[in-house]
Amino acid sequence: MNCRMILEYDGSRYNGWQKQGNTRLTIQGRLESMLTRLTGYEVEVQGSGRTDAGVHARGQCANFHLREERDLEALFQDMNRYLPEDIRILSLEAVPERFHSRLNARAKTYRYQIWHQGKPEVFVKNYFYHLEQELDFQAMRQAADLLQGTHDFCSFCGNRKFKKSTRRTLYSIEILPLHEGKAAALDFRGNGFLQQMVRILTGTLIEVGQGKRTWDSMEEILAAADRQAAGFTAPPQGLFLMNVEYGELK
Amino acid sequence: MNCRMILEYDGSRYNGWQKQGNTRLTIQGRLESMLTRLTGYEVEVQGSGRTDAGVHARGQCANFHLREERDLEALFQDMNRYLPEDIRILSLEAVPERFHSRLNARAKTYRYQIWHQGKPEVFVKNYFYHLEQELDFQAMRQAADLLQGTHDFCSFCGNRKFKKSTRRTLYSIEILPLHEGKAAALDFRGNGFLQQMVRILTGTLIEVGQGKRTWDSMEEILAAADRQAAGFTAPPQGLFLMNVEYGELK
Repeated sequence: MNCRMILEYDGSRYNGWQKQGNTRLTIQGRLESMLTRLTGYEVEVQGSGRTDAGVHARGQCANFHLREERDLEALFQDMNRYLPEDIRILSLEAVPERFHSRLNARAKTYRYQIWHQGKPEVFVKNYFYHLEQELDFQAMRQAADLLQGTHDFCSFCGNRKFKKSTRRTLYSIEILPLHEGKAAALDFRGNGFLQQMVRILTGTLIEVGQGKRTWDSMEEILAAADRQAAGFTAPPQGLFLMNVEYGELK
Repeated sequence: MNCRMILEYDGSRYNGWQKQGNTRLTIQGRLESMLTRLTGYEVEVQGSGRTDAGVHARGQCANFHLREERDLEALFQDMNRYLPEDIRILSLEAVPERFHSRLNARAKTYRYQIWHQGKPEVFVKNYFYHLEQELDFQAMRQAADLLQGTHDFCSFCGNRKFKKSTRRTLYSIEILPLHEGKAAALDFRGNGFLQQMVRILTGTLIEVGQGKRTWDSMEEILAAADRQAAGFTAPPQGLFLMNVEYGELK
């Protein structure tokens, strides 16, 4: 049976989603070793996409195939029992055999969290990029508007050896205040994201907010098709994969 | 000059507020070593009260005396710069020489956080007591009403050798839903609290919520004047010192 789960994790102590041999701690590796322990055979977990080292998820989606039918409620309980406290399965359901978390994903939403006024509250410090500086959010919003839509996002790709199309559609970028305006969230919803794309988009928007770039320079950056044209890569701890959208399952 | 600060801390890795020689990590010890480093002489930090190992604070209050006048804004910045990420000064002000954080405190509010439905969200897991069980909040509120007021709270004192009066006034106990009803906060406001009093009150109220005690048994527990009559001591990670109130400063 093909099982799909939605899960959240605190990525702080992990080397990202994708397993890397048996030596490094990864989310995928941790999920697979848990499922192998529960089933007695090797289970491969397919995520909707990789998250980098230190990146968190509130709604990552992944699926895996089991050789036998299982009671989902019992499996769900067992899975959470065997997982460490910083990974949690939120839901588990049976899906058609052909369903594939990555290939069938239609849209994803990422949130990047910035703390820009004073030091972050101690209870949430691991989930914000701390930047003690006033930002011009109006300019950032204007720049964000230019980044929305379908573009070649090659300038915003952290992988220089990426061979396939770098054309993607960003449906929306929203900038919202958090924690009484001492922090902000940048929400990106798109049909797909290149490696480090959200973190480079965020770094570029931060540079607009700092006055280091003008909001109307976004078109030049896109046209350059060169990573050097865009801003810095914002650090991983501020980034959350919020949810993954699928069409109707057939 | 006498300086009063309001501070927040994540108590997870500390052996409580009160310093214990130089060997154990405590909040008071950490603040004093920071101030000694900044001033070049020994500074004693007086808190409004001790918090136990693992207990957090959102609004602890403490004061300290400096030999010289200092610019408070610069001192505030320096203090936060020298403190670890899990302790943060929220405000700093000059107060009359006679002001004493503990002796002048008129009221304190503590919050105890319980996660009672499913596993806690991974991002807040360190700040909740996790109890996967339905609780009867109506019965808990009725019991809480009986605990409000001025009583001898000897049954709710964790220190068996406590020699002074155990009479205290609880102005209010409020029970609020958190995280869409999957969690709850118990807010206690009173003129003073005995050792572990909030954690024992919470443990007792939880036992009422579980049906192990009836709500109307609170008067008997108070009358018993015996720690054995009350419930268990709820674990420290769910507890926050929220704020300390003072009268007008003369």
